[in-house]
Amino acid sequence: MRETLADWRPAIDEAIADLVPREIDADYLESFFGAPTYEYDPTGIQRALSTPLWELLDRGGKRWRAVLFLVFVEGFGEDPAEYVHYACIPEILHNGTIIVDDVEDGATIRRGERALHHLYGQDIALNAGNALYFLPLKVLTENPADLSAEQRLAAYEMLMCELNRTHLGQGMDICWHNERDVRITPEQYLEMCACKTGCLARIVARLAAIVTDQPDEVEEAVAAYAELTAVAFQIGDDILDVEHSLGRAGDFGKEFGNDIREGKQTLLVIHAIQESDPEQAQRLQDILSADENTDEEITEALAIIEDAGSLEYAREHALGLAAQARERIDGLEFDEETTRKLREFTEFVVDRED
Amino acid sequence: MRETLADWRPAIDEAIADLVPREIDADYLESFFGAPTYEYDPTGIQRALSTPLWELLDRGGKRWRAVLFLVFVEGFGEDPAEYVHYACIPEILHNGTIIVDDVEDGATIRRGERALHHLYGQDIALNAGNALYFLPLKVLTENPADLSAEQRLAAYEMLMCELNRTHLGQGMDICWHNERDVRITPEQYLEMCACKTGCLARIVARLAAIVTDQPDEVEEAVAAYAELTAVAFQIGDDILDVEHSLGRAGDFGKEFGNDIREGKQTLLVIHAIQESDPEQAQRLQDILSADENTDEEITEALAIIEDAGSLEYAREHALGLAAQARERIDGLEFDEETTRKLREFTEFVVDRED
Repeated sequence: MRETLADWRPAIDEAIADLVPREIDADYLESFFGAPTYEYDPTGIQRALSTPLWELLDRGGKRWRAVLFLVFVEGFGEDPAEYVHYACIPEILHNGTIIVDDVEDGATIRRGERALHHLYGQDIALNAGNALYFLPLKVLTENPADLSAEQRLAAYEMLMCELNRTHLGQGMDICWHNERDVRITPEQYLEMCACKTGCLARIVARLAAIVTDQPDEVEEAVAAYAELTAVAFQIGDDILDVEHSLGRAGDFGKEFGNDIREGKQTLLVIHAIQESDPEQAQRLQDILSADENTDEEITEALAIIEDAGSLEYAREHALGLAAQARERIDGLEFDEETTRKLREFTEFVVDRED
Repeated sequence: MRETLADWRPAIDEAIADLVPREIDADYLESFFGAPTYEYDPTGIQRALSTPLWELLDRGGKRWRAVLFLVFVEGFGEDPAEYVHYACIPEILHNGTIIVDDVEDGATIRRGERALHHLYGQDIALNAGNALYFLPLKVLTENPADLSAEQRLAAYEMLMCELNRTHLGQGMDICWHNERDVRITPEQYLEMCACKTGCLARIVARLAAIVTDQPDEVEEAVAAYAELTAVAFQIGDDILDVEHSLGRAGDFGKEFGNDIREGKQTLLVIHAIQESDPEQAQRLQDILSADENTDEEITEALAIIEDAGSLEYAREHALGLAAQARERIDGLEFDEETTRKLREFTEFVVDRED
């Protein structure tokens, strides 16, 4: 899968640059946004839109949403090169959500450098992030692959459905985070992941199915595959945060236990609170609810989670979801190579080191 | 027009409540967003979405975007009562932009009370605002007026086009605001207004034309009417800020000259800098660029704007745009009552007191 990611990256970045060039001029603005009524300010739009987006893209990111889209398109028997602009839709949407989420979470660092709202100001960052929610959808209007009206309508309706649920997921996550007091069920946590992270993955899969004109049941199967894989990935993230922190428990001075410091209600935390004796469960709650924690408190919380067997529970759960994801594509008539790549995605999300 | 606004308001608010009820429960979530994969958290979504939206709506707002939409629909010979849910699309979008703009501008007050990000936290406010960008578009999918696939596709494409330009406009405005140094032309200022405020008005008009199946030239004419009216309205806003401030120049202690304190580059400012002698122009620039201003400096800036004849210039310009707006609908075959209402809108935007 790593070579697939690396192979496609230049073509993907080129297609993104067609949508939002590194250098904005009046001709681009007129061709992409239509003739101005009066006069555009390319300099202003450069600073407000293109510079922030490319700053973020140039910091890295694997473009795996775009690549997964192209893997699906190839698996559905079409030439992926003809659909690279559509591959940008989930990729740009994802970068938009990153910028906005960083403002919402008060993040300071993104991909190893200062978060965009620290670099350009909150106003520029937010507007750029929000602009990226709508910009890529213009691809459907420009229609480079000559899709039928039915396909384009299906794509818009799918996008509206999934983008609505994305905001439900983020809303639940923020709300729980602000409350701190854990009152949610494992099913609600999984739903939050399915909405917040899963819906963007569903967009990847469903869009690939729509542009290649697959029947509804195929679209549903790949959407379920993508959602399950994304939820497994999110749980994998939560596991890594605890595992890395346990490894570093003696290594004070370095940041560790970030999720606990943030009071994040992960599947591990929900499980540990359910499974620990009442005293330990309350202690974990208290540490999560506190505005600040000492390193000793973090170590204590990590130990409660470890003792409750929550790491094993979460890992089992993530592996189970990844297996379910593979089952969803088993019935589809993908070639061997596509099946191998899609299975690899589900394995990567759980067994990874960062 | 005032009675038209008041007449429709209960029906509009009822339709908004169909889209986002005041009390969220699992049944609503399932019917609006589809079955959950696992389990929704209605309490979280209540706090993250419905409570903030209704807090804002209950503070007032004239719902004039929804009403203008219904005036058009009636003018096009259809029963507006059948299209009230579509009228919510621009209205909810507008409320979404208000929430987000307030975060971007660092506003503290909205409709006389604390801005939503001060009341609920920035994360909740932003996510709610962004959710409102996508929520109303679900109306097109639910399709209560049984529109054809062509109409729904046209509506999506129109919305994507206009929402893209909205973010261009906001981007230009933010960028100029951060630069402070005035370098833009009157045409660029008008374009910013046409994008930032005008596009939402264009959505009102174009959506009404699309749902009632008007020919392209009619859609274009009402879109131009709406855009011109919106730009005139924005200039009217800028004039009011200066006029009220001039009236209060002796009345220190009260806030006055807000636009100048914010360094806002309005048509009046651009004109005054062009028309004043170089020394006065530089002085105005300096006051606008400063991070803070004394009341005396504000009074000085206001005097420069007044002496340059910029109030008369801006008023003439706004009246000219309002006249152009009326011309754009003169050729259309609206009944007398609709024409009267639409003309009233253009007059209201310039000759108003708040």
